[in-house]
Amino acid sequence: MKLVRIKAGDDIAYGVADTEGVLVYKGSPFVAWEPTETVVPWETAQILAPVLPSKIVAVGRNYEDHAAEQDVATPEEPIIFLKPATSVVGPEANVVHPAISENVQHEAELAVVVSRVARHVRAEDASAYILGYTAANDVTARDLQRKDGQWARGKGFDTFCPLGPAIETELDPLEKLAVICRVNGEVRQAGFTSDMVFGVAELFQFVTEVMTLLPGDVLLTGTPAGVSKVEPGDVMEVEVDGIGVLENRVVAAR
Amino acid sequence: MKLVRIKAGDDIAYGVADTEGVLVYKGSPFVAWEPTETVVPWETAQILAPVLPSKIVAVGRNYEDHAAEQDVATPEEPIIFLKPATSVVGPEANVVHPAISENVQHEAELAVVVSRVARHVRAEDASAYILGYTAANDVTARDLQRKDGQWARGKGFDTFCPLGPAIETELDPLEKLAVICRVNGEVRQAGFTSDMVFGVAELFQFVTEVMTLLPGDVLLTGTPAGVSKVEPGDVMEVEVDGIGVLENRVVAAR
Repeated sequence: MKLVRIKAGDDIAYGVADTEGVLVYKGSPFVAWEPTETVVPWETAQILAPVLPSKIVAVGRNYEDHAAEQDVATPEEPIIFLKPATSVVGPEANVVHPAISENVQHEAELAVVVSRVARHVRAEDASAYILGYTAANDVTARDLQRKDGQWARGKGFDTFCPLGPAIETELDPLEKLAVICRVNGEVRQAGFTSDMVFGVAELFQFVTEVMTLLPGDVLLTGTPAGVSKVEPGDVMEVEVDGIGVLENRVVAAR
Repeated sequence: MKLVRIKAGDDIAYGVADTEGVLVYKGSPFVAWEPTETVVPWETAQILAPVLPSKIVAVGRNYEDHAAEQDVATPEEPIIFLKPATSVVGPEANVVHPAISENVQHEAELAVVVSRVARHVRAEDASAYILGYTAANDVTARDLQRKDGQWARGKGFDTFCPLGPAIETELDPLEKLAVICRVNGEVRQAGFTSDMVFGVAELFQFVTEVMTLLPGDVLLTGTPAGVSKVEPGDVMEVEVDGIGVLENRVVAAR
């Protein structure tokens, strides 16, 4: 099942995607929801970020080939970092290239959406806390990331976390799901979720040993090799098998 | 004026502290508020964290003497990092010492509380976006911070961000305000806000060049020298001139 968050006229609602359009629900999948009789046709539905997380916990160097291209070893334990909630945008939204960076890069990732309050969750229980999966672009000002050492600035700009288009509730990241990024139609990244150094369940245990995850929080699972520089005007497409295509255009800061 | 957030019976409210107790307000200082006729005496008011931020942006190595004790240079530009909102606790709340760390340390800091949506704010305009100041303890698992390189885990545990007791709206951090930490009554840290490498206004400009700050967001301004290890049973007191004392006990993880 594909859950989407849409704007139709003045209304914002969760719904379930089908061929004709979006079956609108009352409420949200994080609390309680029920179907209405309304179907919004695709032509009139604006797809929003599928969730507004209270926090985004991300993991660095979680694909061996990406660690290698960054000239670093894969870590013994996950290296986690945070992206601010203010960095989230939805499909088709612009990603603003900051004037103070000369090297903004895409990072295609599988994103986990948390369904309920999670603390000290063992890996084998993680799936009970996961609503589903979406696609993410962990946009990174590589020069600032390297300069600072800490990654919060380089990865924390407004618009640097496109999410969407849908939350797929029936997905198994242990299967070999392709994680792709195209820039202006050309494939730059192509990896498989099965190649993660630390799997989703293991990451879930690691993060919830530290902090409470809340309903709607998002866990980014790392990016495969092939990250590359983008410029204003470029169109980035992140595609994850079974989820769909997350397209965002890079624009210059005003 | 000292703003506090209190629990009295089942009710949680903002109020203004005076000698007899807390004058309760309707609403919140971030939206609109007005005084009621109710004064809750100090004996029956439980003081909560004065704000529940959507994000906490912190700055590393912002006092020369602390950078020196960590064997690192003070940076040319601020080094920012994020603490998750789930790390916030109020005065008198326990700080839980994680079993996986062998070196948990206190970091006494002046905290800035944001009053309204702030983006691209110039240093000279920053004060118009600041509701006031409170005290913070940027509790840090120093061993995990060093091991990871990224600081999100070592500084991101639940309970690792005590805030309070009050938001003082009439404070000038350019004055020589003492920032103190005592452990079990013994002074461990004693610095002055006037010794910050980057001042509040400059930090505000730097952070809002990157990301939007929302009402209630908190900016931590760094810690002076003297950070030291605490153990379960220890009582930490952060005191900032003009704000008050933020006391928290360290307890072992269950």
